[in-house]
Amino acid sequence: MTWPHKDLLDVTQLSKDNALAILAAAKSFQEINSRPVKKVPILKGKSVVLFFAEPSTRTKTSFDIAGKRLSADTFSLAKSGSSLAKGESLKDTVLTLQAMNPDAIVIRHVMSGAAAFIAGRLECSVINAGDGWHAHPTQALLDAFTLMERWGSLEGKSVLILGDIAHSRVARSNVHLLRLLGARVRLCGPKTLLPHAVKCLDAPVFSDLDEAVHGVDAVMCLRLQLERQEAGLLPDIREYSRRYCLTKARLAKAAKGAVALHPGPINRGWEIASDLADAANSLILEQVAAGVAVRMALLHLYLTRKGR
Amino acid sequence: MTWPHKDLLDVTQLSKDNALAILAAAKSFQEINSRPVKKVPILKGKSVVLFFAEPSTRTKTSFDIAGKRLSADTFSLAKSGSSLAKGESLKDTVLTLQAMNPDAIVIRHVMSGAAAFIAGRLECSVINAGDGWHAHPTQALLDAFTLMERWGSLEGKSVLILGDIAHSRVARSNVHLLRLLGARVRLCGPKTLLPHAVKCLDAPVFSDLDEAVHGVDAVMCLRLQLERQEAGLLPDIREYSRRYCLTKARLAKAAKGAVALHPGPINRGWEIASDLADAANSLILEQVAAGVAVRMALLHLYLTRKGR
Amino acid sequence: MTWPHKDLLDVTQLSKDNALAILAAAKSFQEINSRPVKKVPILKGKSVVLFFAEPSTRTKTSFDIAGKRLSADTFSLAKSGSSLAKGESLKDTVLTLQAMNPDAIVIRHVMSGAAAFIAGRLECSVINAGDGWHAHPTQALLDAFTLMERWGSLEGKSVLILGDIAHSRVARSNVHLLRLLGARVRLCGPKTLLPHAVKCLDAPVFSDLDEAVHGVDAVMCLRLQLERQEAGLLPDIREYSRRYCLTKARLAKAAKGAVALHPGPINRGWEIASDLADAANSLILEQVAAGVAVRMALLHLYLTRKGR
Repeated sequence: MTWPHKDLLDVTQLSKDNALAILAAAKSFQEINSRPVKKVPILKGKSVVLFFAEPSTRTKTSFDIAGKRLSADTFSLAKSGSSLAKGESLKDTVLTLQAMNPDAIVIRHVMSGAAAFIAGRLECSVINAGDGWHAHPTQALLDAFTLMERWGSLEGKSVLILGDIAHSRVARSNVHLLRLLGARVRLCGPKTLLPHAVKCLDAPVFSDLDEAVHGVDAVMCLRLQLERQEAGLLPDIREYSRRYCLTKARLAKAAKGAVALHPGPINRGWEIASDLADAANSLILEQVAAGVAVRMALLHLYLTRKGR
Repeated sequence: MTWPHKDLLDVTQLSKDNALAILAAAKSFQEINSRPVKKVPILKGKSVVLFFAEPSTRTKTSFDIAGKRLSADTFSLAKSGSSLAKGESLKDTVLTLQAMNPDAIVIRHVMSGAAAFIAGRLECSVINAGDGWHAHPTQALLDAFTLMERWGSLEGKSVLILGDIAHSRVARSNVHLLRLLGARVRLCGPKTLLPHAVKCLDAPVFSDLDEAVHGVDAVMCLRLQLERQEAGLLPDIREYSRRYCLTKARLAKAAKGAVALHPGPINRGWEIASDLADAANSLILEQVAAGVAVRMALLHLYLTRKGR
Repeated sequence: MTWPHKDLLDVTQLSKDNALAILAAAKSFQEINSRPVKKVPILKGKSVVLFFAEPSTRTKTSFDIAGKRLSADTFSLAKSGSSLAKGESLKDTVLTLQAMNPDAIVIRHVMSGAAAFIAGRLECSVINAGDGWHAHPTQALLDAFTLMERWGSLEGKSVLILGDIAHSRVARSNVHLLRLLGARVRLCGPKTLLPHAVKCLDAPVFSDLDEAVHGVDAVMCLRLQLERQEAGLLPDIREYSRRYCLTKARLAKAAKGAVALHPGPINRGWEIASDLADAANSLILEQVAAGVAVRMALLHLYLTRKGR
């Protein structure tokens, strides 16, 4: 396939065919990850910079593993210990990185729009690994992959996104991608955590979880990003959990066989009950495994696109 | 050889044959480390996660070098910059890591029992790189390797372990392994730094160094872990050093040709005199070199065991 | 070529032939960096330790990329998270590293003379990546490479070094290398930032930029190392910039086609005007690209020298 995009900034750039091509490629890479020798030479001699200006375990390690399993060389840059600590602008940092001729820069940044900002200035591919409250396309793709593995197709399925919608790049990217792939989406959270922009998402909004969960095929919990919330938006963690923590009892009100997802890291007992997180209908660890496969697919497609 | 263990949690798991097999394998890998091309392809396509929740230069770098010289891919995770910093539990962090399909997780953690805790929850191999005050099996193995290189065999030799026995995982693991390999062990330190559990170690205990050192073939100094001691256990560093710092004069009271070891990093003049640390009968740097070879042997044995 | 040096401590060690050999090798490696597959196997099985005791993005990443593109294994050590944080001396840290049999240690350290100090104690190659206010030979070599690419030769050219000469290892190494390659050098900066040792550099000194820039072929701006200056040496940033910031208007007073360089990270508007930094006669990004090629050349020459 001739891949038409230089950068992955958000899922809104992708056609349905694009998204399905990524998921199909991920399927073949997931098979590689279960082999004793988990390595193929298809990106040998490619350089991938992992530029994480916010802390991250799973996403950064996932990209690192994905790159190395394709035989690419990876280079990790954190904000601390980098020139950003010396006051260099983001633009100058990435122009410097580009001058070293990488094939892709994977970026996580606290600023919404950071990935798009640098993509417009760089010739190499830019993969958005999360920018502020804006977008997290690789998370949405791995969530879709996880649900496809379970269901075969997302057509006609109903998914509830639960929690801090206002501050969630995961929610934004998922609403779009789930719909693109044929699912219906509902949102649920306390009114203070539903964004003003929630109207743009054009999805049914609930503030009562028991009502929201009724009949859905999956509930996608969001992380309470305590470190990112302005004071006063959350009434009280205990009060929040009492009303919005996903439990086995609440999930039982969803459709038969309904599953729970969470992008991690989870706060057990806050957003999801501990026993549910470990239950068979929790797909949390499947999501993590899917993350490596999806990122292998993305690195492969973006780094071997025509003209490169 | 069909390696019988999934995890290396402590040397107490190892039979004498197991230990000797590790040391024999290390011997062949040490030869590789002196070649111009220090790399063999036997772990190509294997993924090794280095999860160090406590700071470390030598152990982490040693494992990293060991893994890469066997052609494995290594992935470093520190506590800062990881999800642990966001409050994720150790269990959830390692389940997440496992979902990415690594072949081994090497872990250092401040909590005694951390390695065993995660090993019981993971299918991949877990190698304990030091857990709290509990165990440090790879250190004990490299110490044994170093002494074997010098002596040929440990049978009938006498080793004194000197210093802060109470807070030392190095001491615990060494007492067991040295005895398993046929050596006799003595302990020496101020009474406040001899553990209540010292009786379990069932070794002769001395509080006078001049008496303790008499006739031993090796003295293994322990690091004063100032950052880890509760206040009030050490009388005073100067007083401690006056009584327990190993010097050339004191080592001269040991058996002819006796050697000094130290797991590093050394506090020169506190636990060991600076001139002794640099002398020919100091094996400190041999220990470091042995560390790479022993860890290559361990990664090889644990990652190629039957059924993998 | 039989490379005669074990270590690269400063450019003062290099003969003109040595320097030209490095630059010629760099030219061939730069071609590799523009290929789709940016990797050659010539350092396979070699281990390169990157020991950066001061923060750095560009230099460390540049060496990391250089090493991996030659198929060497690289190992990064920062001061935080290393044994140095536990109070170990520099000498003991590097002896420990050497015991793990690396082929080279690349070191950046706040202490002038650190690279020479360790080189005298180690058998492996030591590459100085910047030591205090003393020397930064790889920066000088990449600057020379950048100018050679533009001019063909440095013979008879005139270069102005502008800014905080007193605290600049970049200035020291450049003055020597530029002259060795046939260029003439001028210095310009406020009197408080011209070192007492400026006489040793034996170069014309200006405190008026408009006068200094007259007729030169290149202006090399230095970074204002605010984090390193003793209080009171700089009158005021705004006053400094008014007098010493390189602008298009000022560069227009230099020779026709004159170019601007800066080792980065740049403080836009302080040492160099933002529009000039992005202009066609700014070579800042060419310098970064040259850095990878020059470091590949150095690793190749030092790690394959006779007897290794």
